[in-house]
Amino acid sequence: MGVYKIAVLKGDGIGPEIVEASLLVLKRVGEIFGHDFVLEEGLIGGKAIDEKCTPLPQETLDLCLKADAVLLGAVGGPKWDNLPTDKRPEKGLLGIRKALDLYANLRPAKVYTALIDASPLKKEIAQGTDFIVVRELTGDLYYGEPRGIFRNGERYAINTMHYTESQIRRVVRKAFEIARVRRKKLTSVDKSNVLEVSALWREIVEEEKQNFPDVDVEHLYVDNCAMQIIKRPSTFDVIVTGNMFGDILSDEAAVISGSLGMLPSASLGDKHALYEPVHGSAPDIAGKGIANPIATILSVAMMLKYSFGLEKESSVIEQAVERVLQMGYRTPDISSEGTTVVGTTEMAQLISKEV
Amino acid sequence: MGVYKIAVLKGDGIGPEIVEASLLVLKRVGEIFGHDFVLEEGLIGGKAIDEKCTPLPQETLDLCLKADAVLLGAVGGPKWDNLPTDKRPEKGLLGIRKALDLYANLRPAKVYTALIDASPLKKEIAQGTDFIVVRELTGDLYYGEPRGIFRNGERYAINTMHYTESQIRRVVRKAFEIARVRRKKLTSVDKSNVLEVSALWREIVEEEKQNFPDVDVEHLYVDNCAMQIIKRPSTFDVIVTGNMFGDILSDEAAVISGSLGMLPSASLGDKHALYEPVHGSAPDIAGKGIANPIATILSVAMMLKYSFGLEKESSVIEQAVERVLQMGYRTPDISSEGTTVVGTTEMAQLISKEV
Ligand SMILES: CC(C)[C@H](C(=O)O)[C@@H](O)C(=O)O
Ligand SMILES: CC(C)[C@H](C(=O)O)[C@@H](O)C(=O)O
Repeated sequence: MGVYKIAVLKGDGIGPEIVEASLLVLKRVGEIFGHDFVLEEGLIGGKAIDEKCTPLPQETLDLCLKADAVLLGAVGGPKWDNLPTDKRPEKGLLGIRKALDLYANLRPAKVYTALIDASPLKKEIAQGTDFIVVRELTGDLYYGEPRGIFRNGERYAINTMHYTESQIRRVVRKAFEIARVRRKKLTSVDKSNVLEVSALWREIVEEEKQNFPDVDVEHLYVDNCAMQIIKRPSTFDVIVTGNMFGDILSDEAAVISGSLGMLPSASLGDKHALYEPVHGSAPDIAGKGIANPIATILSVAMMLKYSFGLEKESSVIEQAVERVLQMGYRTPDISSEGTTVVGTTEMAQLISKEV
Repeated sequence: MGVYKIAVLKGDGIGPEIVEASLLVLKRVGEIFGHDFVLEEGLIGGKAIDEKCTPLPQETLDLCLKADAVLLGAVGGPKWDNLPTDKRPEKGLLGIRKALDLYANLRPAKVYTALIDASPLKKEIAQGTDFIVVRELTGDLYYGEPRGIFRNGERYAINTMHYTESQIRRVVRKAFEIARVRRKKLTSVDKSNVLEVSALWREIVEEEKQNFPDVDVEHLYVDNCAMQIIKRPSTFDVIVTGNMFGDILSDEAAVISGSLGMLPSASLGDKHALYEPVHGSAPDIAGKGIANPIATILSVAMMLKYSFGLEKESSVIEQAVERVLQMGYRTPDISSEGTTVVGTTEMAQLISKEV
């Protein structure tokens, strides 16, 4: 019984289709549980460049700042690929992350029993995998200064890995809080045998550990973690790491599931939050009605849980997804012999019905 | 018919056993092909700390500087784990890399048909995997200044990602040269959509491409590469990347083979070179005669090829290893049902016999 204001940014490529499909499920949840989801649309990415000459118009930003949460489809496509880097659709995304101070990127890596054959890993190793990578999103090499290409006789280039104590602490706390309501295991990843930034990271994890005595903490070097994610994925619960290592490890972890089309994400700040599928705008299949809406539907489920505290509603969606998969329905990207192939809207309707 | 001077640094844990085993194979190659391998031993790591109070004594360094190549076992162990970072056995290793200016770390990732069941990947995906990661070893976040933990109200920490044009160019060239005598495919890995250091890296790869028109070049972002290594490992030939990304990706790639006990490495400079197994000193099984000597034996094979230009002798060893595996012999770490388990020395003798 609540009123929730959601900024809806459909974006480019398959963005509009998958977002509309996910809204069918949201609407159904609203009807059943008596919530009022107020949707307001904004432009972002390529479409915004076409209509407003910028990937992130001010009115879109205002809309997001006033909303209780942001739901994003996907941005980008070949049409805008030749623009200079700072004018490209992706800049809209980076701009929004920064403007909303979204510091914790949550990327669940989950293997669905019904889809286990799609994993590149052996079944015995993949099964039971269900962890979340919490990637810091506002610091590190991404934003550090000084940076640039210079010349001193020959060219040389510099980027700066930079983290402050408070930047590390807030994301580490968020990861501890998430671990606390899951299987109570936190893996912190760094390269503290080489990097001072990592040494500070590890120190702060050790400090925060005192506040979460119920959570088991493990420290792994990033090179070792890249191995263990493949060797023993089912033993992880929550992995927390910096922006750069998190970029690499969350994508590595995503492959285990076997389908990017299944993977949602949340980017959380203290005041704002944004939810989007992990996959891109897939311009090659846009408009055909065959895109997999599940990653976006599961992003909606994350929104209900993390932004609105609607745990029950969230897990009802997750269970509906699992049931529809068990019933054998698949979009083309995850289909295999003996399954029933359905389109974007049909998949969303099936899931709505199971809610 | 040559005389080759090899500095032999056995190191700690299983180091002495596996190096001695590998020397049996080297001796056999010398006899058959009429080469004279002159061995001189030096102390390194924990043993050097115990006897000389430093992980890298000057006389060891002198020995390496005068040798045609260095063969290293492994360093470290629990006995020395509580020493301060700059006095630990690993410092001996980092010190030697730096003193010999070893800038290209070659890490083959190969799946042996006989061992394919040990891979965490599905057979269809793992089979045919045979690529080399060329990791830059003298620059990047590892050595960049400024670095440290500071305070400005709160603590903050900094590391510097730094590369010069010539540092990039020499390792990129080395990678092109290696690709040229393999399947002529080079994958350069960077994060040039975010990092200026990566933008310079990509520029230099594009420049050097002109000098190697027979080699196909592909650029991948590091996050995407972390996915593709698991999704399509058999499509890679040579991967070249910086020190930090290479640390992560080469370990990720190592897991595909299913056994670290099989993986050799070479660290090449323009004047010197060092060869060592990828695995560590495994103190838990040291002295039991059960350690797998194959990674060290294959490191010897790399030495023959890369330092002495003895291509034939090198591939004779590689083929001997494959035959012994096909005959069903295994050390305990790679054993499975129906195979014959042998010890360290016996494995080396079997391989020698097949040379
Ligand atoms: C597009 C790129 C800048 C971005 C990142 O590295 O953050 C992407 O890889 C991601 O993970 O969202
Ligand atoms: C021990 C550590 C400093 C080292 C490195 O990162 O270079 C190791 O991980 C390696 O890959 O040889």
